[in-house]
Parts: sequence; structure tokens; C-alpha cells
Amino acid sequence: MKNKLKERIEFIDKSLNEFLPDDNNLQSIVYDSMRYSVFAGGKRLRPILMLETARMFGADWDTIKEFACALEMIHTYSLIHDDLPAMDNDDLRRGIPTNHIKFGEDIAILAGDGLLNKAFETALQSKSPFILDALKELAFSSGTEGMIGGQVVDLKSEGKQIGLDTLKYIHSLKTGALIRSACVIGAILSDADDFEIQAVKDFAINLGIAFQIRDDILDVIGDTKTLGKKVGSDVQSDKNTYVSLLGIDKSIELADKYSQDAKASLMPFGEKASFLAELTDFLIDRNN
Amino acid sequence: MKNKLKERIEFIDKSLNEFLPDDNNLQSIVYDSMRYSVFAGGKRLRPILMLETARMFGADWDTIKEFACALEMIHTYSLIHDDLPAMDNDDLRRGIPTNHIKFGEDIAILAGDGLLNKAFETALQSKSPFILDALKELAFSSGTEGMIGGQVVDLKSEGKQIGLDTLKYIHSLKTGALIRSACVIGAILSDADDFEIQAVKDFAINLGIAFQIRDDILDVIGDTKTLGKKVGSDVQSDKNTYVSLLGIDKSIELADKYSQDAKASLMPFGEKASFLAELTDFLIDRNN
Repeated sequence: MKNKLKERIEFIDKSLNEFLPDDNNLQSIVYDSMRYSVFAGGKRLRPILMLETARMFGADWDTIKEFACALEMIHTYSLIHDDLPAMDNDDLRRGIPTNHIKFGEDIAILAGDGLLNKAFETALQSKSPFILDALKELAFSSGTEGMIGGQVVDLKSEGKQIGLDTLKYIHSLKTGALIRSACVIGAILSDADDFEIQAVKDFAINLGIAFQIRDDILDVIGDTKTLGKKVGSDVQSDKNTYVSLLGIDKSIELADKYSQDAKASLMPFGEKASFLAELTDFLIDRNN
Repeated sequence: MKNKLKERIEFIDKSLNEFLPDDNNLQSIVYDSMRYSVFAGGKRLRPILMLETARMFGADWDTIKEFACALEMIHTYSLIHDDLPAMDNDDLRRGIPTNHIKFGEDIAILAGDGLLNKAFETALQSKSPFILDALKELAFSSGTEGMIGGQVVDLKSEGKQIGLDTLKYIHSLKTGALIRSACVIGAILSDADDFEIQAVKDFAINLGIAFQIRDDILDVIGDTKTLGKKVGSDVQSDKNTYVSLLGIDKSIELADKYSQDAKASLMPFGEKASFLAELTDFLIDRNN
């Protein structure tokens, strides 16, 4: 699995480098800041899911690289803005200083804006006949009914007692929306039919929940060095998590249940979906 | 002129209200925050320019309202982020508290992100056969080679001595890019030919410079009540402006020159361009 991931990450990094040139003009500091966070060693989960969904439906990676990179840019901008002092106020991300610690708050805000904007500029370079449907999915999933909406509810719930329904709502938007659109856009660009799109959507929704529960568990049982960020920061900032609501044992059980459901959604694709199934197990067993 | 503007502003406000619903869900505070700034009484200059360009080429306002609203959302998000403490740190905008004063910094950042994202969601609702070209122009003009790039250079130039070339570069991006794309997108969506697009682009570039010089002049000679923001804030924050570089008299002269050049670019359109020509004079004589 590690080798397969490496091959995909290399393709994504090469493509990101192509779409995010090291520009040499008066505003070059904003490109430095954007590239700093984009190339900070992310897992590339969302683009990997898109590449793999497309491959499963027989599409070439080169036909979806614009959207795969766009999604990673959106994910990265959301981390830059989330880390700001007015939001989660984090100094460390992936083992290195967060964007605003390195470049200052003003440039970090603009680098985030720049990456969200660049995501659409990049996706618009796609030559796919399905570009408009893919753009609509991208824009919806990253907006106030998607990722941004989840971040709003998460922020407003800090320090408050919330129920499992609200927690699921937060994560279905905050992390779930982009994971879902990674698979859905991969399918759309590969000319998948409605039944196939629905199946990968089900897969992604369940994977997204399992992934988030694992994230919450790692914040408690992980170690700072492997994670690249402070352990216990959720407890410290009074965040609602699966662990704080359900405890560790029940959370581990639930992560397992959702990863089983995710893999069950892949049944119609048989052997072709083996990488996505393996990836699901890999993500739920991960330590960072 | 005031009545003609009123009719256009009403059409734009009605359309914005349609694309920015008063949603009732867990994240409704972000919609409140987005709407607060969108409906804070802006001049609607950019959408008016787009409507008028389209009308000049015979297109119906209803066919361009998605892009007109998208452009206003992008303009509004840029103001919300510019006003943040880490940027210009302004408490007052259009006579009312700035977004972060009213909603807090965290929600203001997310409302800005939300408006940029919603701009693309809204533009993607267009049914125009020219939607992709218009989207490319929109995304490019608002990005790091457009508006965001201008804001970066402006921030990095504060407190430094810069030349007129750099000042023009800043404004050609920071305010100029969206004014240009207002006219260019209006022309693209109306199926204007390359010659026509170039003519409205020349008009918009010159208008943008004249408009910015007038802005700098008003910061010195205007009054807080009419302007709705603090007078003298440019001097206070050590901003480079046309007035600080050239003095008042030379700035007034230059604003006049660029507005003449703008109107000259409209010559090929004859009588059909009379509203745009009148609007140019109106903007250069304005007091707020």
C-alpha cells in the first residue's frame, strides 16, 4: 500500500507544482505562502481518492489532475484559515510552523483566499466535457452548505454540550463534504452513470465518518511527533469529538463499523475496487 | 443619472437576495454575516458596469445576473477580509460597524470565504453558452494575478516609499481587475466580438484608474459622514496614494485625464455608450 500511495502522491505533487508556479513578481510572497502550506507534506487523501475513483472507471489520471489539485488547494486553504489566531489558534501543523506563524496573519489570510481562488482557476483549465457538473460539485461541497458550513457549526459548538446528531452534521460537512466530492467528481469526470456515482458517494460518506472518528481517537492516543501536531488539543480547546461524546472503546467500534459500511458500498465494483477497500483499512489503522 | 442608478441597484439587490437566501440551518450565522456586508449599502459599481455593458451589446439583464451578483460577492468578501485587524484594522465601513466588529473575527473570516465560494456557486447557475469563458475571466481577475495580488503588494508597500509605477500596478490589480472584468464579462456574455471586448476593456482600465485616484482624493478632502468611513485613514496608516505621491492638484488633473481616456474608448459605440460616459463623469465628481 505504501508504494502505491507514493506513486499517487508523486503524481499529485508534480501536478500541484505545475498549477502553482513559483512566480517572480511583486506579489511573490503570496505564492511562497501558498506553496509553503501546499507542500507541507499532506496525506493527499482527497486527490488520491479522486485519482483512484477515476482509475476504477477507466479514466486516465491526466484527465482529472486539474480537479484533483483544485480539491487539495481547497483543503489546504481551509487548514490555513482554521489555524489562524481568531479560529483554532494553532502554531504547529504537520510538524512545522503554521502559515501565519511563518508569514504573518495578513499574508496567511490572503494565501488562503488565493488558494481557494486558484482552485477554481485550476479546475477551469480542465478540458473535460463534464467540467460544468464537476465544477458545481466542487463549489457546492466547499461552500457554506459544505465544508465552510461545517467549520461554522464546529466553531459555534465549542464549549457547548452537543448531541451525536450535531457532531455527525458538523463532520459530514467539515471533512465529509470534500471526501465525498473527491469520489463524486472522479466519477463524474469518468462519465460514470448515476448508479455508480451513488455507490462511490455512499463509500465516501462512510469513509469520511470513519476517518474523522480515527482523527478524534488519534488526538487522544497518538503522539505529537508522529502526528505532527499537538496531542490533546481537542480536549484543551473544549472541542466536541466522538471520543468526548462516546469514549474511546465505543469510538473504535464505530470507526470499524463505518469502514465496513464503506467497503460494502464498493461491492458492485468487485475486484476493481480493491485499492479503495485497502485504502479504507489503511486509513482506519493509521497513526498519523 | 440618480434614477437610472436606482433602477439598476434595485435589480441587483433583488438578484443578490435571490442568490443569498436567508437560510435557516445550524450555520445560519454565516449567512447573516454574509448578508450583513452584502446589503450594507454598496455602490454596486461593478454589477452596474456589467449590466450596462451587456445592455449596450443588446443582452438582457436576466442573462447576466448570476455573474453580476458573483462579482459583487467577490468585491464584498475582499472588503470583509481587508477590514480585519490583521489587515487594515477598520471598525467602520459604509457608516456601520465592519463585519468582524459585528460578528467576531472568526465568523468574518468564514463569511469572506463563504462569499468567495458562493460567487462561483452563483456564476455556475448561469445558463449562458459563454459561461466557461466568463468563469475564467472571473477567476483570473479575482485571484493572485488580479485583486488578491494587488492587495498583497499594497500591504507589503505600507510604510515604504514606492514609485508611481508600483502604485499603478497595485491599483490595476486591487481595484482595476474587477472593474475590468465587470465590463469584459458583460461583453463576453453578450457575444461581443474581440474588437468590442478590447474597447470595453480599455474603457474599464482607464475608468478604474480614475476611480481610484478619486478615492484617494476623497480620503483627504471628503468628510466622514458622507463617506461612511474615517477620513484621513490613508495618511494615518502610512498608505501610498496618488495624493501622497503627486499632491492634490496633480491628482485631480490625472483623474480628469483618465476619465477622458475612458470616454474616448467608448467612441466606437456612439450613442449606445452614453450611459457609461455619463457614469464616468458621475463617478469622478462623486463625494462618497
